[in-house]
Amino acid sequence: MEDAALDERLEEDSYPVTELPLCQLRLMDDKRYPWLLLIPRRRGVSEIFDLDEADQQQLWREASRIGQALKEFLGADKLNVASLGNVVPQLHVHLVIRRESDETWPGPVWGQGESRRYNLDELAAMRDRVLALVEGLDLKAD
Amino acid sequence: MEDAALDERLEEDSYPVTELPLCQLRLMDDKRYPWLLLIPRRRGVSEIFDLDEADQQQLWREASRIGQALKEFLGADKLNVASLGNVVPQLHVHLVIRRESDETWPGPVWGQGESRRYNLDELAAMRDRVLALVEGLDLKAD
Repeated sequence: MEDAALDERLEEDSYPVTELPLCQLRLMDDKRYPWLLLIPRRRGVSEIFDLDEADQQQLWREASRIGQALKEFLGADKLNVASLGNVVPQLHVHLVIRRESDETWPGPVWGQGESRRYNLDELAAMRDRVLALVEGLDLKAD
Repeated sequence: MEDAALDERLEEDSYPVTELPLCQLRLMDDKRYPWLLLIPRRRGVSEIFDLDEADQQQLWREASRIGQALKEFLGADKLNVASLGNVVPQLHVHLVIRRESDETWPGPVWGQGESRRYNLDELAAMRDRVLALVEGLDLKAD
């Protein structure tokens, strides 16, 4: 596995949670939404189709299983999944847990309002919660 | 295969292109961007993880191969891929071909400005272009 350096904007806006089989999992530092990033540890990849087929399947497996677990655990209303990358070219997939009561519902979260940073206790608590959920999942191919 | 009825908002905002192995492929009627929708022909599905694993892989295979072909054919700058569904619950994946010169770059396209409808000749020409590209692709599992 070739490890790629993390884009500095992703590093600044998010907090590391754990290493998945393919991706680094990070928590966006915005407490308006439970919002995760999956960043494949591959060099020079900016589009999903830059990954080989097996990596693509693994990326979506990680995204889908973590998204489902987090949505169900939180009793949320919708999972938003997206790969945009217009600002940061390093491939990253957003998983955003949405509630009908959140402040930009039903609009998308990108480019809306100002992010609200966690304080360090909140950040640690949220990271621990996500980590406990993810550690209970099987993220390998069936 | 159980065919699901198409949500009427998807029907109103988009134009049918063709049937893929899993999805109906539709063209969003907004000429600001080449913008496609992939709608799995499955009943009662609103989250990607509501699909079984084989269907999920097929959905992403269709999205990835079509997105790559269209981006390369058009010489565009970025592919945006997203499953949101906050407004229309029927599962649908957006493929949006982005250019640095488009009117909402680098922001996302959802909820930004007013869509601009194609006239019927433009719509037919765009549909034919997409159809010709898609017909040249192998969309089955390797």
